[in-house]
Amino acid sequence: MVSFDRVAIIGLGLIGSSLTRAITDKGQASSVFGFDGSEAVRAEARDIKGFGAEITDTLEEAVSNADLVIMAVPVGAVGALAEELCPYLKEGAILSDVGSVKKSIIDAVLPHLPETCYFVPGHPVAGTEYSGPKAGFSTLFEGRWCILTPLPNTPRSEVEKVSNLWAGLGSDVEEMDAEHHDIVLAITSHIPHLIAYNIVGTAADLEEVTSSEVIKYSAGGFRDFTRIAASDPVMWRDVFMNNKDAVLEMLGRFTEDLTQLQRHIRRGDAKALEDLFTRTREIRRSIVEAGQETEKPDFGR
Amino acid sequence: MVSFDRVAIIGLGLIGSSLTRAITDKGQASSVFGFDGSEAVRAEARDIKGFGAEITDTLEEAVSNADLVIMAVPVGAVGALAEELCPYLKEGAILSDVGSVKKSIIDAVLPHLPETCYFVPGHPVAGTEYSGPKAGFSTLFEGRWCILTPLPNTPRSEVEKVSNLWAGLGSDVEEMDAEHHDIVLAITSHIPHLIAYNIVGTAADLEEVTSSEVIKYSAGGFRDFTRIAASDPVMWRDVFMNNKDAVLEMLGRFTEDLTQLQRHIRRGDAKALEDLFTRTREIRRSIVEAGQETEKPDFGR
Repeated sequence: MVSFDRVAIIGLGLIGSSLTRAITDKGQASSVFGFDGSEAVRAEARDIKGFGAEITDTLEEAVSNADLVIMAVPVGAVGALAEELCPYLKEGAILSDVGSVKKSIIDAVLPHLPETCYFVPGHPVAGTEYSGPKAGFSTLFEGRWCILTPLPNTPRSEVEKVSNLWAGLGSDVEEMDAEHHDIVLAITSHIPHLIAYNIVGTAADLEEVTSSEVIKYSAGGFRDFTRIAASDPVMWRDVFMNNKDAVLEMLGRFTEDLTQLQRHIRRGDAKALEDLFTRTREIRRSIVEAGQETEKPDFGR
Repeated sequence: MVSFDRVAIIGLGLIGSSLTRAITDKGQASSVFGFDGSEAVRAEARDIKGFGAEITDTLEEAVSNADLVIMAVPVGAVGALAEELCPYLKEGAILSDVGSVKKSIIDAVLPHLPETCYFVPGHPVAGTEYSGPKAGFSTLFEGRWCILTPLPNTPRSEVEKVSNLWAGLGSDVEEMDAEHHDIVLAITSHIPHLIAYNIVGTAADLEEVTSSEVIKYSAGGFRDFTRIAASDPVMWRDVFMNNKDAVLEMLGRFTEDLTQLQRHIRRGDAKALEDLFTRTREIRRSIVEAGQETEKPDFGR
């Protein structure tokens, strides 16, 4: 069932190119247009069979007359993009996004939003470690959460149109305050990524252990971290630049807890360690039960 | 091709029960015996079709006349087990193990080893987050590394028998000094596990973010960590108790690097972040190329 008549996706990386495919495959719009600032990306997208969107040559062509425009560019680029596209938005159009941080995006977009248009910020909690227009696929959002952080003044009817679109792509939709979103994501996503990046970097710098040894014996736990650490560098750079307060708060807590663990190890406190490890096993079980994870051993690899 | 006539596996958890299945399925021994200190585990193992070993009622029955005895119990229990079983070893028997730390195990075992027997310490770098005799499977060791840390006095012929067994189970075998092993594994396995445990614990303690929110939005990166944090608590408690020096050394480095990252974030140093993230993406690619990981997006989930 069509949620919108005409949709425009701006930014054709992993998320943008999954949106074009998903919206088209699941019949959520009558027409889908796509644009990317890079000519090379536009050319690549045009060559992909079943990409799900007509690729325009200019931003204006994509945005004009669109009922919904979704910005799917790195978080740090959203403000400049909003400034450029807002003059082309038709009256009553809904602008949305998919960024992993919400408060800083809202602050960057609102100054440019025309009075007659609406901004419904969104964040699909989904992705893989791959990038680019070929990386997208239409089932990426199925069974995943999409968090919307609507602004207080936005009419419910407009929020629900966006909500219905995401439901049509297979997601469960949740709404929350933008600041709360940024804290939740700091711990469930941003800090895990930071930690993964850090450990891969630490391993790469060792003198006594060669990087080929690290790579060879990575099945011992390290390789799980490296998947996250292979995520798009620009996207993640922008996330940390734009969710600084929440990230630093969570990092502080993480480090306090780690110091305590270090202490247990130095002092040989076996019981304290076993207690923590038993507790964390239960949390894992809860995630499998909540349907957010496979129970296949080793992720089914 | 049979590597040994009679093999005994002591400890029938994930690794032990994978060994019984693998050795039998791949015809690496004429007969396989299994024993576990827990009567409940022995009963469970006896009920498993294709378990691959005759389960004995006593340690002595399993060990007497065995050509190879592999200890597959938590690292902290190896010393006591060696003390108990060594008197039953026949002349010329090889004793081995699968522990994730090597130096402390060697120190715990050697005092009990009969003069006429050999100890060939081993460590298959393989596992899942599951435990117990039902969790094992015969292909666990395929395509994985097995590290042996033979003692200087051990004749090559005895080391090669063990090496051939692991090759027969599908592993690639590497030899190294025990202390070097402990450092390599500290960074590739022990620290990743510690970090994963820590972050799951930190998330569980937050006041502003509920644990159901953490669980709901775990697809954002958190869930990858939770798999490791669901690993066997006793096994991991013993690893940290028995590889203290190397773990504390690696933890120190990890924390120094993390503090520097924290600094980049606080100061808004976008370039420094992007440089690190780009570097780590390359390391991930190397792991996929080295055959130690699937390139399927999201581990093929």
